[in-house]
Amino acid sequence: MPRTTVPAPLHSLAWDGGLEDGRLLILDQRRLPAVVRYVALRDLEGVIAAIEEQSVRGAPAVAIAGAYGVVLHLVPRAARLGARSQALAKHLDQAIAQLSRLRTTPAHLARALERQRACFARHAGHLTALEMCARLLMEAKRIHREDEEQCARIADHGAPLLSEGIVTIGNSGALATGGIGTALGCVIRAHQLGRKLRVFVGETRPHLQGARLTCSELQRAGVPAVLLCDSAIAALLADGQIKAAIVAADRIAANGDIAAQVGAYQLAVLAKHHGVPFYAAAPAAAFDPTVPEGRRIPIDTCDPEDVRCLRGCRIAPAEVAVWSPGWDITPARLITALITDRGVIRAPNAQKLAPLAEPAAAAAPPAP
Amino acid sequence: MPRTTVPAPLHSLAWDGGLEDGRLLILDQRRLPAVVRYVALRDLEGVIAAIEEQSVRGAPAVAIAGAYGVVLHLVPRAARLGARSQALAKHLDQAIAQLSRLRTTPAHLARALERQRACFARHAGHLTALEMCARLLMEAKRIHREDEEQCARIADHGAPLLSEGIVTIGNSGALATGGIGTALGCVIRAHQLGRKLRVFVGETRPHLQGARLTCSELQRAGVPAVLLCDSAIAALLADGQIKAAIVAADRIAANGDIAAQVGAYQLAVLAKHHGVPFYAAAPAAAFDPTVPEGRRIPIDTCDPEDVRCLRGCRIAPAEVAVWSPGWDITPARLITALITDRGVIRAPNAQKLAPLAEPAAAAAPPAP
Repeated sequence: MPRTTVPAPLHSLAWDGGLEDGRLLILDQRRLPAVVRYVALRDLEGVIAAIEEQSVRGAPAVAIAGAYGVVLHLVPRAARLGARSQALAKHLDQAIAQLSRLRTTPAHLARALERQRACFARHAGHLTALEMCARLLMEAKRIHREDEEQCARIADHGAPLLSEGIVTIGNSGALATGGIGTALGCVIRAHQLGRKLRVFVGETRPHLQGARLTCSELQRAGVPAVLLCDSAIAALLADGQIKAAIVAADRIAANGDIAAQVGAYQLAVLAKHHGVPFYAAAPAAAFDPTVPEGRRIPIDTCDPEDVRCLRGCRIAPAEVAVWSPGWDITPARLITALITDRGVIRAPNAQKLAPLAEPAAAAAPPAP
Repeated sequence: MPRTTVPAPLHSLAWDGGLEDGRLLILDQRRLPAVVRYVALRDLEGVIAAIEEQSVRGAPAVAIAGAYGVVLHLVPRAARLGARSQALAKHLDQAIAQLSRLRTTPAHLARALERQRACFARHAGHLTALEMCARLLMEAKRIHREDEEQCARIADHGAPLLSEGIVTIGNSGALATGGIGTALGCVIRAHQLGRKLRVFVGETRPHLQGARLTCSELQRAGVPAVLLCDSAIAALLADGQIKAAIVAADRIAANGDIAAQVGAYQLAVLAKHHGVPFYAAAPAAAFDPTVPEGRRIPIDTCDPEDVRCLRGCRIAPAEVAVWSPGWDITPARLITALITDRGVIRAPNAQKLAPLAEPAAAAAPPAP
């Protein structure tokens, strides 16, 4: 079917309204690509449920949702308290505690919640409770906007590395972030720059982000996409048409090991075997120098029912045991280059990564 | 739940009745594990439909079904013709032509149809049409029984190689064959011999034979089974609990390369990377010395809709392109050993495999 216009990319989430009447709009990704539906979240419980049921997903988007979730939790309490911001401290702790347990593998959510805590601490002495909420909303919007900017820079740095046949898994586009995406952002930017691409997308079980989300995003962007089963990736690489593999990294250890969507490590091993470069894209904020190496990164698991069932349909015996990590660890030696908003780091190691721990100029906190 | 008795294994197919009233019973595998239902096939069209829609699957079981399908096609025609068997020749050709196009990657179906053709040729001079059909039914039953015997010998040879953690993909048990199975037969025999096993089963997209069939077969046999997504296999291997990978081979080229369920090559590469032995099990009859190397084996593809949809549920944009090989090629250098009914062939190569082309004593045609 010829398309006369290229549809705009879908956005994962947006803040709607002001402070006291504000709400978080999120695209319910569970029903994609069949149903495009935004839902309005008005409290922390709604944000937690949306993350738990993967209505919003992707490490950067989840982190942004968490930052807004803190605001949604505090605003009605601030309105009730009416007075000094210190009275909000226990509610802040409560929101951060509830949110932070939702994802422990990616660095993004913990980083966003740390920023909200730091924002609170900076202003706790001299603001009313509602003024504090206004600052926290500003900080959430800043986290959101910075993610958008980081995505744009990642895409700029990564695009020149890509041409012809590319293989990816997971979803790391606009649906996973506050901007154009990380790994998929690089792909889409390369396409925008006129490179002839053909992107092979592993379906990415158990949640099928590749089939459901990445294929849709590529189609919307006009990039030729080809879907395949995760088990066929080695055969694809043996076929010789693939020139690069690319995934999003969700946490980068001090030595350059990464945690990413389960299947990324598999793709890295297969890429190495076939002599294909393996790229991992992430904002510098995914770098976690407190974790010396990949095997120290905690691995969140998926619900076993997500493996035994598929979209409500049982595909395995009900009582069968399931091994279902949600992430895996790719050692630095399998990574050709990390693509970050601060540039491309080839053959990453502790020495080359150390500068990422320093705050970038654009990310410095504003004067109070 | 404690089980007081171990349920008997399910059988993939059985001939029921005599010659003129005979029918082929097959277990409809599309609905497993939820529904256990046998259907009776009374003509070639039914057999073809059952193979096309994967009600019967697995290279050995499909070959046996094809051999019986020839009989089902000829019997009513023989009864009508009433006379000399030569008049059946064009119907034989027709049945073989229709059946052989259904699977071109595995060696088994073509081999079974060749055997029916040779049986016909041996007896064409001196039998009535119905007598010929009786011979073809005998030959189909012999193919069926030989497969059962070959499975038993493969299991005997393979079991000593297996212990502790094992990973497999696809389904290569009783549901795929006329006996205990090939790769899964080795696993089940090892369990019967008292080895403590834990079998990790890749779900095996697109048709989910691992999730739907292999997990059920292992549970029935009392073998501890753990299901995982195909994309998590590398992470599992990195975890260190796996001591062997095993799959079924569907065709063995002269140089030892194999065609197998798509994902087998991927598993072989991953096993190599992690220093885990990779075994492929098959009857000697899967050896095809006319194909010098794996890349000359034709690769049948799956229906793209089987990738875009899952059990009737759409999981990808309707119009997205799909790359869906049903089989892949594993080069001999990645195969630790082939496990055949004639013994274990370590580090297979053309010289070691050549004897498989000679007929085994048990497989020699009987005197007319």
